[in-house]
Amino acid sequence: MRNRIYIIGMGPGREDMMTGEAIEALEQSAVIVGYTVYIKLLGERFVEKELFSTPMRQEEGRCRLCFEEAAKGKQVALICSGDAGIYGLASLMYEIGKDYPETELIVIPGITAASSGAAILGAPLNHDFCVISLSDLLTPWETIEKRLKAAAEGDFSIAIYNPSSHKRKDYLKRACDILLRKIEKERPCGYVENIGREGTKAVTCTLEELSKAEVNMFTTVFIGNSGSEIINGRLITKRGYQIEGNTNICRNYRGKKTI
Amino acid sequence: MRNRIYIIGMGPGREDMMTGEAIEALEQSAVIVGYTVYIKLLGERFVEKELFSTPMRQEEGRCRLCFEEAAKGKQVALICSGDAGIYGLASLMYEIGKDYPETELIVIPGITAASSGAAILGAPLNHDFCVISLSDLLTPWETIEKRLKAAAEGDFSIAIYNPSSHKRKDYLKRACDILLRKIEKERPCGYVENIGREGTKAVTCTLEELSKAEVNMFTTVFIGNSGSEIINGRLITKRGYQIEGNTNICRNYRGKKTI
Repeated sequence: MRNRIYIIGMGPGREDMMTGEAIEALEQSAVIVGYTVYIKLLGERFVEKELFSTPMRQEEGRCRLCFEEAAKGKQVALICSGDAGIYGLASLMYEIGKDYPETELIVIPGITAASSGAAILGAPLNHDFCVISLSDLLTPWETIEKRLKAAAEGDFSIAIYNPSSHKRKDYLKRACDILLRKIEKERPCGYVENIGREGTKAVTCTLEELSKAEVNMFTTVFIGNSGSEIINGRLITKRGYQIEGNTNICRNYRGKKTI
Repeated sequence: MRNRIYIIGMGPGREDMMTGEAIEALEQSAVIVGYTVYIKLLGERFVEKELFSTPMRQEEGRCRLCFEEAAKGKQVALICSGDAGIYGLASLMYEIGKDYPETELIVIPGITAASSGAAILGAPLNHDFCVISLSDLLTPWETIEKRLKAAAEGDFSIAIYNPSSHKRKDYLKRACDILLRKIEKERPCGYVENIGREGTKAVTCTLEELSKAEVNMFTTVFIGNSGSEIINGRLITKRGYQIEGNTNICRNYRGKKTI
């Protein structure tokens, strides 16, 4: 049998926001590898496993550690926050995996911040949308700027990851300024901090207000499209249904049960 | 206490791809409402509940039924496939919710096809990406075309939902033809059918091949960005890490355990 590594998206951090197959894969594993913060989020439940935590900026080492432990015949799980295939380590694992052809990779999807943040804020991504990270550690700022412009041009709703960090305090403002060239300043927006963790905070605002908002590396930002509205304090992007305003339709099938 | 409706993303359909909080919310509910196919996917587990299934194209009725059942004091859950806030009924519930101010809405996120399909195909969305539906039932084709152009312009990876239906057999070809004006015909792409259900099928191909592919309403399509590659048969969009090729880094923390 080939070695197998599970690359697991653990969602925002709360165990009940993980899928059953993610928990099952962790239970089946002897070794769990991850960034220190995520290993800690796992809590007591997996304390009997061999846990390897590595600091940020050592992503290649973290990935190679997985392959080396798997080569010893151990079942290895690599955990990422959110979805491992969305700004996580899934693609780096496949790239490094060229050096370890005997090892099979299984990506187990998780709830990404676009989904979990949107659920708290209302339904900001309920039509076509873009996801853009403002981190320029691995991406030239020119590319980020090009994508912000294209997202505005296409009238997408937008989810912004990594809107700020210690070294990039003004990046959200810079991004909003680019969007404001195309999008009106009253555009409904919002942001969510600490999704699925203690201290969850959700705010709705205009794009102009967003450009002055204080956000941090645990914030996910949402920008509505041209049809988005704030309804009862929630940010809502419409799917396009015509609302008839009556309930006649549903009376027809009231009481019809399946199964 | 106010009435409360859970709007639940059930993921692709398999119970182990639902989150713990989604299952918990279903267990707490007396009434479960959904499109017939999704109610059936729930299977035997919730057969004791009051189950209301409604056909397609009766979305408003389905939503109003939830509010009316909740007004009777019952705990109601509305289920959507994937994520209820991504092309699901979350936003329509908030819109109709204006008529039912006594009812609170709780969206419980689920694994959307962008995540679950990407996990099967490799890691096609591992950098900035767009999600676009080709269904023009509720969206003018001109808007879809504008977004496809903008997505290509911004060099996003793209996930395409609803690439085909009985009445829209050539829509994926039309979309690819638009993309091919800007994107080279060798661009790595892929598609996944029946995610998380019986008969899952994943294919990688070029954009030119994609334009001729036979897809259906259960297919999710992925288009790489300018840096995407097929690695060992998987579609991989790189995050941008420099690979050093040695394992020195990881030896430094080998054996360091947390918790």
